[in-house]
Amino acid sequence: MSEHVSIGLIGAGRIGRVHAKNIRQRIPQARLLAVADVFEEAAQRAAADFDIPAAHADPRFIFDDPAIDAVVICSSTDTHAQFIRAAAEAGKHIFCEKPIHLELTEIDKALAAVEKAGVKLQIGFNRRFDPSFKRARDLVASGRIGEPHLVRITSRDPEPPPIAYIKVSGGIFLDMTIHDFDMARFLMGQEVTEVYATGGVMIDPAIGEAGDIDTALITLKYENGVLGSIDNSRKAVYGYDQRVEVFGSRGVVVVSNKTPDNAVVGDSDGFHAPLPLFFFIERYGEAYVEEMQAFVDSVLKDKTPPVTGIDGRIPVVMGYAAWKSYRENRPVKLEEIEKKHK
Amino acid sequence: MSEHVSIGLIGAGRIGRVHAKNIRQRIPQARLLAVADVFEEAAQRAAADFDIPAAHADPRFIFDDPAIDAVVICSSTDTHAQFIRAAAEAGKHIFCEKPIHLELTEIDKALAAVEKAGVKLQIGFNRRFDPSFKRARDLVASGRIGEPHLVRITSRDPEPPPIAYIKVSGGIFLDMTIHDFDMARFLMGQEVTEVYATGGVMIDPAIGEAGDIDTALITLKYENGVLGSIDNSRKAVYGYDQRVEVFGSRGVVVVSNKTPDNAVVGDSDGFHAPLPLFFFIERYGEAYVEEMQAFVDSVLKDKTPPVTGIDGRIPVVMGYAAWKSYRENRPVKLEEIEKKHK
Amino acid sequence: MSEHVSIGLIGAGRIGRVHAKNIRQRIPQARLLAVADVFEEAAQRAAADFDIPAAHADPRFIFDDPAIDAVVICSSTDTHAQFIRAAAEAGKHIFCEKPIHLELTEIDKALAAVEKAGVKLQIGFNRRFDPSFKRARDLVASGRIGEPHLVRITSRDPEPPPIAYIKVSGGIFLDMTIHDFDMARFLMGQEVTEVYATGGVMIDPAIGEAGDIDTALITLKYENGVLGSIDNSRKAVYGYDQRVEVFGSRGVVVVSNKTPDNAVVGDSDGFHAPLPLFFFIERYGEAYVEEMQAFVDSVLKDKTPPVTGIDGRIPVVMGYAAWKSYRENRPVKLEEIEKKHK
Amino acid sequence: MSEHVSIGLIGAGRIGRVHAKNIRQRIPQARLLAVADVFEEAAQRAAADFDIPAAHADPRFIFDDPAIDAVVICSSTDTHAQFIRAAAEAGKHIFCEKPIHLELTEIDKALAAVEKAGVKLQIGFNRRFDPSFKRARDLVASGRIGEPHLVRITSRDPEPPPIAYIKVSGGIFLDMTIHDFDMARFLMGQEVTEVYATGGVMIDPAIGEAGDIDTALITLKYENGVLGSIDNSRKAVYGYDQRVEVFGSRGVVVVSNKTPDNAVVGDSDGFHAPLPLFFFIERYGEAYVEEMQAFVDSVLKDKTPPVTGIDGRIPVVMGYAAWKSYRENRPVKLEEIEKKHK
Repeated sequence: MSEHVSIGLIGAGRIGRVHAKNIRQRIPQARLLAVADVFEEAAQRAAADFDIPAAHADPRFIFDDPAIDAVVICSSTDTHAQFIRAAAEAGKHIFCEKPIHLELTEIDKALAAVEKAGVKLQIGFNRRFDPSFKRARDLVASGRIGEPHLVRITSRDPEPPPIAYIKVSGGIFLDMTIHDFDMARFLMGQEVTEVYATGGVMIDPAIGEAGDIDTALITLKYENGVLGSIDNSRKAVYGYDQRVEVFGSRGVVVVSNKTPDNAVVGDSDGFHAPLPLFFFIERYGEAYVEEMQAFVDSVLKDKTPPVTGIDGRIPVVMGYAAWKSYRENRPVKLEEIEKKHK
Repeated sequence: MSEHVSIGLIGAGRIGRVHAKNIRQRIPQARLLAVADVFEEAAQRAAADFDIPAAHADPRFIFDDPAIDAVVICSSTDTHAQFIRAAAEAGKHIFCEKPIHLELTEIDKALAAVEKAGVKLQIGFNRRFDPSFKRARDLVASGRIGEPHLVRITSRDPEPPPIAYIKVSGGIFLDMTIHDFDMARFLMGQEVTEVYATGGVMIDPAIGEAGDIDTALITLKYENGVLGSIDNSRKAVYGYDQRVEVFGSRGVVVVSNKTPDNAVVGDSDGFHAPLPLFFFIERYGEAYVEEMQAFVDSVLKDKTPPVTGIDGRIPVVMGYAAWKSYRENRPVKLEEIEKKHK
Repeated sequence: MSEHVSIGLIGAGRIGRVHAKNIRQRIPQARLLAVADVFEEAAQRAAADFDIPAAHADPRFIFDDPAIDAVVICSSTDTHAQFIRAAAEAGKHIFCEKPIHLELTEIDKALAAVEKAGVKLQIGFNRRFDPSFKRARDLVASGRIGEPHLVRITSRDPEPPPIAYIKVSGGIFLDMTIHDFDMARFLMGQEVTEVYATGGVMIDPAIGEAGDIDTALITLKYENGVLGSIDNSRKAVYGYDQRVEVFGSRGVVVVSNKTPDNAVVGDSDGFHAPLPLFFFIERYGEAYVEEMQAFVDSVLKDKTPPVTGIDGRIPVVMGYAAWKSYRENRPVKLEEIEKKHK
Repeated sequence: MSEHVSIGLIGAGRIGRVHAKNIRQRIPQARLLAVADVFEEAAQRAAADFDIPAAHADPRFIFDDPAIDAVVICSSTDTHAQFIRAAAEAGKHIFCEKPIHLELTEIDKALAAVEKAGVKLQIGFNRRFDPSFKRARDLVASGRIGEPHLVRITSRDPEPPPIAYIKVSGGIFLDMTIHDFDMARFLMGQEVTEVYATGGVMIDPAIGEAGDIDTALITLKYENGVLGSIDNSRKAVYGYDQRVEVFGSRGVVVVSNKTPDNAVVGDSDGFHAPLPLFFFIERYGEAYVEEMQAFVDSVLKDKTPPVTGIDGRIPVVMGYAAWKSYRENRPVKLEEIEKKHK
C-alpha cells in the first residue's frame, strides 16, 4: 500500500461533511477521491466544497473504483450494513458511523463479510477520541485510581431530534445511549453483563407517541462486579452535557464539560460561567479528527482499528437489553438477548 | 412554656457530645440540664465538659424531672424507640438521632406514643440543614430548574465503621443510604415508590463476612415519575464525598463538596485542590447547629418540626425495600414492604 | 495565673460584639467580666446579650479591676493608643483592633508603655487566621512553591463606609489597604522596603470630596527583591473579594473566595455560582474566633502573640508611604517615612 | 481582486510554519504560493510539507511576483521593518509578526511606506483572537461590567528563551510584555499614558548577565484614569499562565487558563487538575487561525485589519517607557518617549 489512503465517502449529510472536511484539511495521509449520496445534489455540493473529484448518487462507483482503498460510511442507519458488506466484498477498508444496524442478524452478516474479506472495520464511536475521556480511560487502565468500583456517565443532549428521525432511530437506547454503552465499555476495558433501564417521557409527549422515551436512567453490572450508571435526557436547556466519573479504591477521575471560552463574569447576581459547547459537532470536533486519523493509521500500518466491529455490535445488544429491561421492569442479562438472537 | 427549652441528653457518645456542645454554645434559647449514658463515666465527662448540672447512667431521672421540657436521644440505635416512648409518656418533646429503630413495628409503636402524647418529635436527618443542600431544595421547590426529571446523589464515606458496628447497623441501606433516602425525599418534596438496589463487597471482605456490602448503586422511582440514582461507598480515599444534582426542564442544580480552605497549589504536576472536609462532624458542623436550633424553635413556637416521625419512618421502609431488591435482584415497591409489615 | 483569662471589653460596637459573642461562646478559657462603651446603652445591651456582669461608660473601672487579666480594645481608632497605655500601666494584657493609631508618635508611645509593663499586645489583623490565607502562608514558609517571586493581593469591599467614617479613617491606605499591607508581610515573612501607590476616585465623588480615593493599585518591593501588587476597591458589586496569589520558582499558591454554599445552577444563560460571603463579619467569622483563641493562649501560656505591636506599627508606616507615593507619584521607601518621623 | 488571496511567506521558522499550516489547511480563501527563508533548506522543507510551489533564500522573488497579493512576515525581528517597506513598495498587503522593529525610527519609516502604498498591514498580536480574551473584550465594550476601574494581566512563560535570543530580543518589555501591552490596550479600547515598571533577575543569572530581567511587575495608567497591572515571569513551572481580569462598576470578568483536557483526579492527597496548555503554539492554536482568517478577510473585503500598524507601534513605545521606568525607578509617561524620539 502507498503512503496515502484513498477514500470514498458514502453519505454527504451533516456528519459526512464533517469527515470530508477533516480528511481534506487535517489528515495529510488521506485523499478523498469520491463521494456518493442518494441526494445527488448533496454529493455534488460536498464535492465542490471539499475538492472531491467525483460525485454520484449511487455508491457503486466507489466500490468499483480500484484506486479507492477505503470507504467512510455516513449514510442513513438502515444502509450501513449493506454498504459494509458491499465494501468488504470489494476489498475496501471501512469506517462506518454507528450503529452498524438495528438488527443483530444484519450486523452479524456484515461482520462476517468483513472477516471473510480481511479488511479493516472501524465504527464511529467518536467519544473515545475526546482528550478528556481518553485521559480518563488511560488513568483507569494505568491503575491510577486503583480497582474501579463505580462508573457514572451523564449524557444529555441540548435538544431532541425531529420526531421523524426518532421513529426510525431504534429509540433512545439504540440511538443515544448507545454512545454511553460504548463509553461504559471503553472506560473500564470490561464487558457489561446485565442492564436495568428505567425512563419516561418528560420532555415532549410527541416522543412518547412515537413509541420512544426522552429521559432514562440505566444501571449496568460489569463482569467483574463493577457497577455503572448512565443518565440521559434528550433536552438539557444548558446544552450538551457530557460527563463521566470513575471511582476506585485509590481515587476518582471526574471529567467535566468543555466550554467555548474560559471567561467568567461576576455581578451582583453571582458568578456566571459559559455554557458547554453546544452539541456533538462542537464538543467532539477534535475527536472526529482523531478517530479518522486513527482509522487511516490502522490502514497504513496494518493495525487493528481502535473501535472494531465487535465494539460496534455489543452496544446494540446492550440497547436491546435496555429496551427489554425498560418494558419488563427488571434487570436483563445480555446473554438473554444473545440467546433469543440465536 | 418559658422562653427557654430545658433539655436532657440521653447518650454522651460522639454525636451526643456534638449536640451538647452546640446546645451549650450556640443555642441561646436552650439549657442543658441533665445527661444520661449507660457508661456513667461518659455522662460525667460530658457534664464536666459542657457544664451540665446532673449526670447519671439511668435516663429515668430525666424523664422524671418536671423541669425538663425536651430530650435529645443519641444513645445506641436499639434503644431509640423505647426512649421515644418513655419520653412521650413523660410529656417531653423529643429530638432523636436516626434511625428510629430497625424494626417497623417498634417505629410504629414509638410514633403512636408520640402522637398520643401530643409532643414534638424531630429526627436527626442533619443533611437537610446543610446550606448547600438546603439551597438546592429551595431552588427545586421554587421552580428555578423547572419540572425535575432526574436526581443524582453521591454519598461516600472516607472510611468504613468497625465491623462490630456494621453487624448491628442494619447494613449499608439502613445505616448509610438511609441519609440519602431522606435526601432524595427532601430534595424533591415527593415520595419514592420503587427501589432497585445493586451492590457488592469491594473494599473489605470482612464487611461481606458480616453479612453486609460496602458499595451500592440504587435506582429510585418517584410517585411523579422522576428518576433518582444514589451511589454509595464505604471508603473514598479522598474523603467524605457528598454531592447532589437535580436536573429539570429549565436547568440543573449541582452541589459540590466543601473544603476546609480555598488554597490551590500549582506545580509541575498540575493544580492541586484540597480534599473535602473529612467526615460528617466536619462537613455538617453548621448543619448540626441548625437542626438543633430548628428543634428548639419548634418547641418554643409550637410548630411542626422540619423532620417528623414519618420522615424518620419512610427511609427505613426504603432501606428494607433496598435490601429486598438487592437480594432478589429486582425492583421492589415500597408498598410490598408495607404490606408484609401489616 | 489561673486557667482562665478574665477579660474586659472596651467598645461595644459591631466588632466589639463579634468578639464578645466569640469569647462568650467559643473560647472556654476566657471569661468576659466587664464591658465599657462611651455610649453606655451600647455597653448595657452587650452586657445583657452576652451575660457580662458589669457595664459602664468609662473604661476606667476595667483598668482598676484587679480581677481582670486582659482588655480587648474595640473602641474608635483615635482612642486605641491611649487605652493601650492605660491598660499597660494597669498591668493588663491587650488585644487591640487595628490600627493602633494614625500617628506614629502615638503608636510609639503606646508600644513603649507595653514594653515597659511587660504585658502582651496582639493587634487585630484577623485575616492571618483565615484558614486559606494561613495555609498559603504555611505553603510559602515550607518551601512548597520554591523561592517566591511575585505576590498578588486582591482586596475589594462590597460597599464603601459612610463618608463621616472615611473622613476620620486616615484614608484608604490606612483604613483598608492596611490589612493588605499586613497580609503582604504575613504571606512572605519578609519586610517591604518600598511602595508605589496609584489610585483614583471612581465610585463616589463624595469620597474624593472627603479627601480620599476609592480605588487603588499598589506595587511593593520586598527586602529580598520579591515584588508585590495590591489592588483595592471600595465597591465590588459582587461582594467582598479577598484573594491572594504567591508565585515562586517551584509553583504557585492561589487563594480564591469563599461562598456561603456550593450550589451552582445551570440554565440556558450559563452556570451560576453563588456570590462570596458578604463582608468581613461573614468572611472572617472563623478567623475572629481563631485570633481571640490565639490571644488567650498567648496569655495563658506566656507566649508572644502571633501579631505583635510591631506588626501593628509597620502597616501604618506603609500606609504613610503609600499616601506620600500617591501624592508625589513616585515610589517611596519606608525609611523615608521613618526618617521624617524621627 | 479575486476570491482568493495569494500569499508569500517570509520566514519558515516555528511561527512561519504555524502560519503556513493554517493557511494551507484552515483558510480556504488563501493560497500559499511561495516561501523564503535565509536558510534555504528551511524554505524548502516548508515547501515540501505544505505544498508550496516556490521556495528560495531571498524574499525578493516574492516581492517581484505579480501573482502574489500579500506577504506574511515571520523572519527575525530585525528584518521586519525592511520587509514591510519592500512589500509595501511592491504593492503587497502585509501580515507581520510583532514587533515591527526595536527602533521607533524604523517603525515610522515602515508605517510611512505602508501608508504611501495604501496596502493593508496587520500585526501579529495573536492573543486578541483567543476566544476567551475576545469575549472579555466584548463584555467590557458592551458595558456588561459597567465602567472599568482596574485591569489585571498575568502572563508567564513556561520557560525562558535561549540566552542568544534574549540578547537580540530588546529585553523582556519589548519581547514578552509587548503582548500584554497590546492586551491592555485591546481589553479597554483605551490608551495607556504612563507606565511604572519594576522587575528583577530571579530565575537565571545568565539572563541578568545578558542585560535583561526575567520577572516584572508593571503598573499602567490609562488616559481615562483606569489602572492596570501586568505581572510577568519567564518561567512558571506549571506552564503557560495567561489570565486577565477587568473589574468595573457593575461587575468583573475573569479569564482563566485553558487546559488540554477536563479530567480531574482525586486521591488521598487532593484533587489534581491538568496543567495549562504548554506554550503559545498550543494555547493560541485557534487564535493563529483566526488572526490569519481576519487578515485574509481584510484583504478580500477591503477592510481595515483588526490590528493595525499603530497597534504595532504603541506597544513598542510602552516597552521603551517600561525600560526607562525600570532603570530610573519612576513612572514614565509615554509622551516622554515620543518627545525623545522626535
